[in-house]
Amino acid sequence: MDGLTLYDHPESGNGHKVRLLLSLLNIDYTLVFKDIHKGETRTPEFLALNPAGRIPVLQLADNRTLPESNAILWYLAEGTGFIPTDRWERARVLAWMMFEQYQHEPTVAVARFWCHHLEMTQERKAQLAEKHVKGYEALAALDTQLLRSDWLVGSNPSIADIALYSYTSVAQEGGFDLSKFTNIQLWLDRIAALPGFIPMEPWTE
Amino acid sequence: MDGLTLYDHPESGNGHKVRLLLSLLNIDYTLVFKDIHKGETRTPEFLALNPAGRIPVLQLADNRTLPESNAILWYLAEGTGFIPTDRWERARVLAWMMFEQYQHEPTVAVARFWCHHLEMTQERKAQLAEKHVKGYEALAALDTQLLRSDWLVGSNPSIADIALYSYTSVAQEGGFDLSKFTNIQLWLDRIAALPGFIPMEPWTE
Repeated sequence: MDGLTLYDHPESGNGHKVRLLLSLLNIDYTLVFKDIHKGETRTPEFLALNPAGRIPVLQLADNRTLPESNAILWYLAEGTGFIPTDRWERARVLAWMMFEQYQHEPTVAVARFWCHHLEMTQERKAQLAEKHVKGYEALAALDTQLLRSDWLVGSNPSIADIALYSYTSVAQEGGFDLSKFTNIQLWLDRIAALPGFIPMEPWTE
Repeated sequence: MDGLTLYDHPESGNGHKVRLLLSLLNIDYTLVFKDIHKGETRTPEFLALNPAGRIPVLQLADNRTLPESNAILWYLAEGTGFIPTDRWERARVLAWMMFEQYQHEPTVAVARFWCHHLEMTQERKAQLAEKHVKGYEALAALDTQLLRSDWLVGSNPSIADIALYSYTSVAQEGGFDLSKFTNIQLWLDRIAALPGFIPMEPWTE
């Protein structure tokens, strides 16, 4: 897996997922930060890499590009311990990753973005309250699974854990209180203890 | 693959994806419809199958259950032609499925649901207009890819096509006009011509 380039932004949890897995797998790569706040993902050059104008994007040595953080995780993790060998467990990993994109990221991550980047109008405050309701539901679902098992799927860390780690670890930046989610806290600590672990970057403002 | 049960609802595109793949693969299964409008996915019995209270849910003969339509597609399609054997193409399939859950379903499918099930208040009309903007972006991305290739990934239909077919085929029920998306229309016809194809159920109201 030589000659990889990752286009990313320091504040992105979607980007951090990929950087975390690359670090855990000890894979070398070139990191190119694009400032999403300065329109650097909307230039013609970047749109040629990903027409959706979003980071992260993985680029292979032969210049092929792959968007979507969870698809990148799957590509990098195939053949490693981060994807289970059991067919049923693979499907369970994907179920958690779909949950992440549909219920967790649009609430937990979006609330964090709003709290840092948008002016809090009255209308926005009402929308943020909705995000908190749905986000707490997602966090409760995560906590319930982590009461039953140390890792989301099977007996080892998988890309399901990686995919859900990044934004959960900074949920408080979006106004979420994790103190009642004991199982999530223990799981965050378990991930942080993995060899090669790197944390989410501190907020740069 | 004996003894499968699918919990589903006739109007659900997420459910139709799974029924379509099962039909294309000629797999027998027991279909159990749960009426989401009558709270049948919120009973203690159903919540034991899926704590999130959502259909579709696949149940194996040994009673294990799997939520998340796209994870179910992956589970059923492993080892068949609907998942590519090439590692890069598998990742591309997943990228389209993540796109479906993050950008397509929350706009194209949610607009359809709102148009049929919610009273159209002034506030809701404004939100629907937002859904149309984002939904048209998703449809344009799909159309652009289908200008380049007959199928979303590689030279054969994959579960990426299945995942995106169901709600796209009824996008007009959410107020979308597909007439300018020529490539999408041709692709819908290609899918409808596959042996074993079944269409989305007509709306039951």
